Amino acid sequence: MVGRIRNRRFAAKVVEVDEAAQLIEPGDNVGMSGFTGAGYPKEVPGALAKRIAVERACGRPMKVGLWTGASTAPELDGVLAEVDGIDLRMPYQSDPVSRTKINAGSLDYTDIHLSHVAQQVRQGIFGHLDVAVVEVSGITEDGRLVPSSSVGNNTTWLDRADRVILEVNSWQSAHLAGMHDIYYGTTEPPGRTPIPITRPADRIGVPYLECPPDKVIAVVETESPDRNTVFAEPDAVSESIAGHVLDFFADEVHRGRLPRNLLPLQSGVGNVANAVLAGLETGPFRDLTAYTEVIQDGMLRLLDAGVLLTASATAFSLSPAAADRFNRDAAAYRDRIVLRPQEISNHPEVVRRLGCLAMNGIVEADIYGNVNSTHLMGSRVQNGIGGSGDFARNAHISIFVTPSVAKDGAISTIVPMVSHVDHTEHDVDVIVTEQGLADLRGLSPRRRAERIIERCAHPDFRPALRDYYDRARRGAFGFHTPHLLDESLSWHQRYVVTGSMR
Amino acid sequence: MVGRIRNRRFAAKVVEVDEAAQLIEPGDNVGMSGFTGAGYPKEVPGALAKRIAVERACGRPMKVGLWTGASTAPELDGVLAEVDGIDLRMPYQSDPVSRTKINAGSLDYTDIHLSHVAQQVRQGIFGHLDVAVVEVSGITEDGRLVPSSSVGNNTTWLDRADRVILEVNSWQSAHLAGMHDIYYGTTEPPGRTPIPITRPADRIGVPYLECPPDKVIAVVETESPDRNTVFAEPDAVSESIAGHVLDFFADEVHRGRLPRNLLPLQSGVGNVANAVLAGLETGPFRDLTAYTEVIQDGMLRLLDAGVLLTASATAFSLSPAAADRFNRDAAAYRDRIVLRPQEISNHPEVVRRLGCLAMNGIVEADIYGNVNSTHLMGSRVQNGIGGSGDFARNAHISIFVTPSVAKDGAISTIVPMVSHVDHTEHDVDVIVTEQGLADLRGLSPRRRAERIIERCAHPDFRPALRDYYDRARRGAFGFHTPHLLDESLSWHQRYVVTGSMR
Repeated sequence: MVGRIRNRRFAAKVVEVDEAAQLIEPGDNVGMSGFTGAGYPKEVPGALAKRIAVERACGRPMKVGLWTGASTAPELDGVLAEVDGIDLRMPYQSDPVSRTKINAGSLDYTDIHLSHVAQQVRQGIFGHLDVAVVEVSGITEDGRLVPSSSVGNNTTWLDRADRVILEVNSWQSAHLAGMHDIYYGTTEPPGRTPIPITRPADRIGVPYLECPPDKVIAVVETESPDRNTVFAEPDAVSESIAGHVLDFFADEVHRGRLPRNLLPLQSGVGNVANAVLAGLETGPFRDLTAYTEVIQDGMLRLLDAGVLLTASATAFSLSPAAADRFNRDAAAYRDRIVLRPQEISNHPEVVRRLGCLAMNGIVEADIYGNVNSTHLMGSRVQNGIGGSGDFARNAHISIFVTPSVAKDGAISTIVPMVSHVDHTEHDVDVIVTEQGLADLRGLSPRRRAERIIERCAHPDFRPALRDYYDRARRGAFGFHTPHLLDESLSWHQRYVVTGSMR
Repeated sequence: MVGRIRNRRFAAKVVEVDEAAQLIEPGDNVGMSGFTGAGYPKEVPGALAKRIAVERACGRPMKVGLWTGASTAPELDGVLAEVDGIDLRMPYQSDPVSRTKINAGSLDYTDIHLSHVAQQVRQGIFGHLDVAVVEVSGITEDGRLVPSSSVGNNTTWLDRADRVILEVNSWQSAHLAGMHDIYYGTTEPPGRTPIPITRPADRIGVPYLECPPDKVIAVVETESPDRNTVFAEPDAVSESIAGHVLDFFADEVHRGRLPRNLLPLQSGVGNVANAVLAGLETGPFRDLTAYTEVIQDGMLRLLDAGVLLTASATAFSLSPAAADRFNRDAAAYRDRIVLRPQEISNHPEVVRRLGCLAMNGIVEADIYGNVNSTHLMGSRVQNGIGGSGDFARNAHISIFVTPSVAKDGAISTIVPMVSHVDHTEHDVDVIVTEQGLADLRGLSPRRRAERIIERCAHPDFRPALRDYYDRARRGAFGFHTPHLLDESLSWHQRYVVTGSMR
């Protein structure tokens, strides 16, 4: 057999997408592939949404529990949220339609550490997993599944679901085969053993996903690109933040705290992350490695430049241009990129052992070094914590980056007290804005406050922050972490009422 | 040679305590042994405090950086804080005098995860370690050190300090020898390897501490008891909390989520912890194990009763009566108790692998499941985070326990929004008060709020919490985590102003 489906038992299950969508029942919990805009099923979710709309029109409201790797794309999260087809969403999302429904109170969203998903599902915390809908890039002659551009929780979904629907996407490079490292050694305690990764690119599993053919109820053929976000060239603010981070790394090397080739990098996505990676491209550091969640444009460029030797992740997160380039040359990357289940890419054991340098974006930080990664004004969720907690807590150095203002200067991202905490004072080593970098390691709360206000806050907000801190140092209930509770959240409240923190 | 100091080179260094204290210089960073009231140096700190008072009287103010394992006792933290002799205190304290100075703003305190201390010190984050002052229970013929009733950070202090002062305490049981497991395999990355513990009582190191004799500048002989806290018999509230926890465990076993002998227990200290352990003594569970920070009275009783097979910790934390009993029968416990460096007892890798059941006390929790373990009214530190973050984040199930009210009912420990966050919504699985137990796993914030208010809050405060939540569900800026920012901390502010949250 030629083509992407080379096993007869699987080939015999090929159906049209609408037929596949009919195999999902109302109330099912559905585990779908996808991590950022990569490797998510492209067609079954849309067909399912269409079906849900029809059912509702016929007076039969239908919802499913929707579990994924992380965020996906409009063709998955968007269409299902649009028809109110989601009962409980977990563990991460970044879709505008979903976000609106969540913040309207009509969609339940449970935002959990990405490294915790597999074990919580195995424990049955979210109930039984009925159906897995997983994109793969091919099926081998002997019935093994070649993973797609993300691994995410696919091993868990295929293992736990009663019924499996596969999407075989021939847009994905055929050369992805061999790039994945699927580890089947995780179990529930007791009896767990060490995860034997000691270097970022170590391979400890097999390159294929396993799934008993009997569980596969449908196979759908697709040829659809991942929904990647366009790469934005770094602007002055992100370049400035990147400059501070690179100076910090150079200083740590100079002090003998980091080796000359640094330690395995973890980097979130977005402008600032790409600016840091772009800076590394021309910086003094060579022979780098990455142990991270996603390989974004900047990582690919570092690989191309030979600055980055190897990268381990659970997914790609590439712009259309970079994805095209990757798909053309995928074979050339196969020995230098390892894609793993997110339980392993984000595993606290491995992150701590390797000593990752974690760099993640945030919503806001407060003067005492607490970080909010998820909520606008304490109540409205933006995306979710994702893997930032997996990395920040266990990293060798945990760095959080943000422009010092948002909304054209109406919002200060450095505030007296954060309106929600995702990373506590105990987990935040370094905060960086375009204004400067505050190394908080070893500092008591008051010393942190002085450093954050002077180095990270925007000059427009610095006097008000100093004023708050000075008054708190005189009038607080205690002076370990001086706060004035009747105004500590007043900046946020002012924004809610007036549209500005000023 | 007989007695506790059996090596001639060490014996030759025995001096009076005042002479030893003279060897500590102003501005030194001093790493002292001690974890809870166990294994701390009993006499050098007092002599140092006396010297500091004299120096100050002579117009030569003197301070030292004070690093320990965790909290110690009045003879260490208390006397040094009393004379304002501490420059920076880390990583944990619970001393009344220290606490007062910290909250007065005159003592800098950096409160960090106990598992992070060793690596941050190795990185030099807190500066150079000048002196180690370490209690041991003996010195062998060939010059190895027999650890005392706590291990804490002693391996790190002995390894990093330029100069070492030993206290050899003959009050400690001679039968402690062989009970410790000192692992010397931790390094800074790259090159870290798995920590090969797969069962709580696994021994992976050696029973002695190593220290080059050349570094030892003084040896002081003492015969002083650990400063242990009196064991309080469980009261009705703590027994009620314990009952809910035991019912929960039974239910988890019934659902097949926990084995019949549960998983390794981690338990904080105090009344509630002891009540849970007392409940386990007569409960249905057998063949238990513990992988925890401290072995308190309840653990010892479980070992005596044969209910607990083995226990791993970094320290004892026993009442005087239990300590006497332990000292009489220490030899009988040697194969069932393992004392480790706190870097290992609290290591995220091991905690996650073993799947610990973490039970820790708190200051307050909010309706969305965020937990404050450290601060009163957002500003005044109580003790510190200790190891609760090491365990909570990586535990199989993370349980937080507290009476529903404090200060004779003036304070509700369930509040609209916590005034400080040490454990985020992502890390809190279960909250228990004497009112009931809220299993939060898998729940979205709104569902958590309903469960916490109805099951955990005190009836006196429940209507006000319902009222806040109901109004927030109508008037918040977003409805994922509905908050009214102009009153979310008003309960605390009311307490600050009136002395009551009512």
